[in-house]
Amino acid sequence: MGKIKKFLLTEKDIPKKWYNILADMPNKPMPILHPGTKQPIKAEDLYPLFAKGLVHQEMNDKDVWIDIPEEVLEKYKIYRPAPLVRAYSLEKALDTPAHIYFKNESVSPIGSHKLNTALAQAYYCKQEGITNVTTETGAGQWGTAMALATKMFGIELAVYMVKISYEQKPYRRSLMQTWGAHVVASPSMSTKAGRKIITENPNYQGSLGTAISEAIELAMSTPNCKYTLGSVLNHVSLHQTIIGLEAEKQMEMAGEYPDVVIGCFGGGSNFAGISFPFLRHNFTGERKTRFVAVEPSSCPKLTRGIFQYDFGDEAGYTPLFPMFTLGHNFAPAHIHAGGLRYHGAGTIVSQLLKDNLIEAASIQQLDSFEAGVLFAQTEGIMPAPESAHAIAAAINEAKAAKESGEPKVILFNLSGHGMVDMAAYDQYLAGDLSNYSLSDEEIKANVSQLEQIV
Amino acid sequence: MGKIKKFLLTEKDIPKKWYNILADMPNKPMPILHPGTKQPIKAEDLYPLFAKGLVHQEMNDKDVWIDIPEEVLEKYKIYRPAPLVRAYSLEKALDTPAHIYFKNESVSPIGSHKLNTALAQAYYCKQEGITNVTTETGAGQWGTAMALATKMFGIELAVYMVKISYEQKPYRRSLMQTWGAHVVASPSMSTKAGRKIITENPNYQGSLGTAISEAIELAMSTPNCKYTLGSVLNHVSLHQTIIGLEAEKQMEMAGEYPDVVIGCFGGGSNFAGISFPFLRHNFTGERKTRFVAVEPSSCPKLTRGIFQYDFGDEAGYTPLFPMFTLGHNFAPAHIHAGGLRYHGAGTIVSQLLKDNLIEAASIQQLDSFEAGVLFAQTEGIMPAPESAHAIAAAINEAKAAKESGEPKVILFNLSGHGMVDMAAYDQYLAGDLSNYSLSDEEIKANVSQLEQIV
Repeated sequence: MGKIKKFLLTEKDIPKKWYNILADMPNKPMPILHPGTKQPIKAEDLYPLFAKGLVHQEMNDKDVWIDIPEEVLEKYKIYRPAPLVRAYSLEKALDTPAHIYFKNESVSPIGSHKLNTALAQAYYCKQEGITNVTTETGAGQWGTAMALATKMFGIELAVYMVKISYEQKPYRRSLMQTWGAHVVASPSMSTKAGRKIITENPNYQGSLGTAISEAIELAMSTPNCKYTLGSVLNHVSLHQTIIGLEAEKQMEMAGEYPDVVIGCFGGGSNFAGISFPFLRHNFTGERKTRFVAVEPSSCPKLTRGIFQYDFGDEAGYTPLFPMFTLGHNFAPAHIHAGGLRYHGAGTIVSQLLKDNLIEAASIQQLDSFEAGVLFAQTEGIMPAPESAHAIAAAINEAKAAKESGEPKVILFNLSGHGMVDMAAYDQYLAGDLSNYSLSDEEIKANVSQLEQIV
Repeated sequence: MGKIKKFLLTEKDIPKKWYNILADMPNKPMPILHPGTKQPIKAEDLYPLFAKGLVHQEMNDKDVWIDIPEEVLEKYKIYRPAPLVRAYSLEKALDTPAHIYFKNESVSPIGSHKLNTALAQAYYCKQEGITNVTTETGAGQWGTAMALATKMFGIELAVYMVKISYEQKPYRRSLMQTWGAHVVASPSMSTKAGRKIITENPNYQGSLGTAISEAIELAMSTPNCKYTLGSVLNHVSLHQTIIGLEAEKQMEMAGEYPDVVIGCFGGGSNFAGISFPFLRHNFTGERKTRFVAVEPSSCPKLTRGIFQYDFGDEAGYTPLFPMFTLGHNFAPAHIHAGGLRYHGAGTIVSQLLKDNLIEAASIQQLDSFEAGVLFAQTEGIMPAPESAHAIAAAINEAKAAKESGEPKVILFNLSGHGMVDMAAYDQYLAGDLSNYSLSDEEIKANVSQLEQIV
C-alpha cells in the first residue's frame, strides 16, 4: 500500500528517561542570579517558588539521563508515542529533492506539546503534598495543559491568562474551566502587580510578563502553593526532550538522519525538545546536524536581541537569567502566534546560540500563515500559528535544497494544531493581517535599560 | 511500564477492504422508492445526483468485501490507523468491574470520523472527472471533512451550513474556508428551496433537512457537479466500517471481545462503522454481542419514531427511504449535539433495529454533558457533544455491570473531539443548558402526515 508515511512506535518504545543537556554542554550557562544580592542562587532560594523535585532538575548539571517517573509515563500513554510523519505531499507541492519529516505533537489531547512538561510538573508537586499551583498563559496552550495535568493529579490550579487572549480565545479558556481550573484575565485586581498596571493603564491588554508576575505573587502569598512555568526553564526543556528522543528512534525506522532540525521559538521548550537529543551527537563529533530556532520577526530576541542578564517577568519578581533578550518590559506586537511573544530565551538555548552550536531565524507573520495554509492543504493538519513558523523555515530549507539539488533531510516539530486558532486564519484569509518590523532604534531603546541590572 | 493503554496498529495493518453488510444481512432493507412513481429506484435514477462509483456501492448487496482504492488508503495514512484505548481511569472513577474500551476517531485532522467517507467520496468523484461537488453540514464536522477531502483530490466544494451553526460555530466555517470550500449559511437566497423558506419565515435558523434540499438543488443545476452526503446512506456506512475492522484487530491484541458495542446516532454512519464488522459474527451465530445506537432524547427517531417510507430532506427532493423517522419536517430542539439532529435513520440500521439485531437508547442533553466532562477529566480527551452520548450510554452499561458484578467488555466509538465545541461546554458549566422532552402527542402529530406518502 505505497510508501510509509507515519513512523509509529508502540507504548513500550516510549523513552524511560529524559535527556539532560545541561550535563553534556561544552560550556555551561552562567549562573542564575538572585535579584537582590546579584549572587548565584542556590536550590533553597527557589524552594518557595517551585516544587523541590523540579528545582533539583533545574540545577542538575551532573546526570545526563533522568528517570521519567512511572506515574508520568502512564499519563504520557494518553497520547504518546506521537507519530513521526514524512510530508510527501508537502515535498511534492514544493517540488523539492529534500525529505521533509515532522514530529506530530498536535496529537496530544490539548493539541500541543505542552502536556509533556505539565504532567511532569503536576506529578512532582503532588509528590511533595502541594495542593495548589498557579501559572500564566498567553494564547492558552500552556494553561490548558496545566489544567488537564493538575486535574489528573488532583491539584487545584489558578491561571492568569493574558487579557487579550482571555477575550479573543474563549475556547481555550473553556477548556481550562472544563478541566476545573480557575482562570483570571491578566492584568487583574487580585495582585499588587496587576493593580499597579491597571492603575497606570486601565486599558492594558496584558502580556506574558505581567501574567507571570501575577502568578508568582499569588503562589508566594497562598499556603502550600507553588508556581509553574511552561517554557524557558531548564526542567521544562528537560521534559520536552521526550519529543526528540522518540523522533530519534523514528528517524532510525525511516532509515535517515536529519541534516537540519527546526523548531519554533517562544521561550525555547519545543525547540529544545526536538533538538537536544540530536544535538548530543554533534557534541561527540559523530554528526554535524544544523539546528534552527525560528522566532517571529516581531519578537526577535535571538536574531536581534542582546545577550545579557535580565528578569523573566515584567515586574522583576524572578531571578536574573543570562539570556538573549529584548528587555523584560518589551511589548511585542499582537501577532497571532501568542506563544512566541516572550521577550527572552531560556539560558541553555542562549548559551548554545552564543557558542554557535545552534542557529536562529525569523519569520514574518504573513509568511508563517502562507506556510500554515500550504501545510494544511497538503498534509491535512491545520497547524497552530506558532508551529507555522517552523513550517515556514522548513519550507525555506526545502527550497534551498531544490536550488542546490541536494536531497537534504529536514525534520521539524509540529508543536500543535490550530483548531482553536481559526479566528487567526479567518483574518489572514480576509487580508486583515500585517507583518511587523522593528527598527534598530526601537530595539536599542528597549535593551539599553538592561545595562543597569547587573 | 504498567498496563497497555492504547492498542496501536501500524500502517500496513490498515484494512484493505470495507465490509458491506448489505450482502450479509438476514433480511435486506426494502427498496428505496422513486418519489414520483413510487417504484423502486434503479442505479440510473441516482446517477444525476451521485458519482456512479458511489451509486454502485449504494446498491451492491452481493459483495461482502469491497476493495479500498489505493489512493484512498494513502490518504487514510494521514491519521489511520486510529488507536483503540482502554479507559482505565474512567473505569476507576466508576468503580466498575467492566472493561471499557474506546476507538479514538478524534485523532483525524478534522477531529472526527467523517473523513473516512469524505476521502472515499471525493476519490470516486475525481475518478469520474467531476469538478464540483455540493454538500450540507449541521455542526460542521461533515463539511470540514469534505473540505479537506475535496482539496486533497482537487475538486471544488460548496457547503450549505445550517444557519445557526454558521453563526455559532465560526471555527468550523473557518476550517472549511482555509481548506478552500465555499460556505453558505442555509437557508440561503441561492436556491428555490432556500428562498421559499426565507419568504415564509425570514428568521428561520435552518435545519439539516433544508440544507440538504439546497445542496441537492445546486448540484442538479450546476454542470459536472454531484451531491455528497455524510451519513444515512449505505455507501457512507460502508466506508465507516474501517473503524470497526481496525477495532476488531485491536480487541484481539487486547485479548478480549466486546459484550456490547456502542455508537452515538445521527444518521447512523459512525454507529454503523464501529458495529457492522462485529455484527457479522452475530449473523454467523459465533457471537452474541449487543449493539446500542444512542440518540438524543430530543430527536428520538429510533426509540420513539415510526418505521415508514419518508424523504431524506425537508423539501422532498430525495427518494423515499424505508426508515425509522420522526417525519422529514420534524424540527428538533437546538441541542448542542448538532450532528444528531437528523429526523431519520439509514435504511440498513432501520432494518436491523426492526429485526431486533441491534438496540437503541436515548440520552438527555444534561446527562450527555455530565458524561463528557467526566470523560475529559479522567481520560483527558474533550469529547464532541455527539460522542458524549455514546460515553453516557457506556457509563450506564458500566454501572449496570457494577450492579450485577459482571466484568462486561464495553466498546464505544469516540467519534470526535470537542475542541471546537467549547461554547457548548461553557453553557453547560454555567448551568444554561436544559433537557428536552417530547410528548407522545407531538411525535404523533409529526409522523401522522407520513401515512400519505406511500
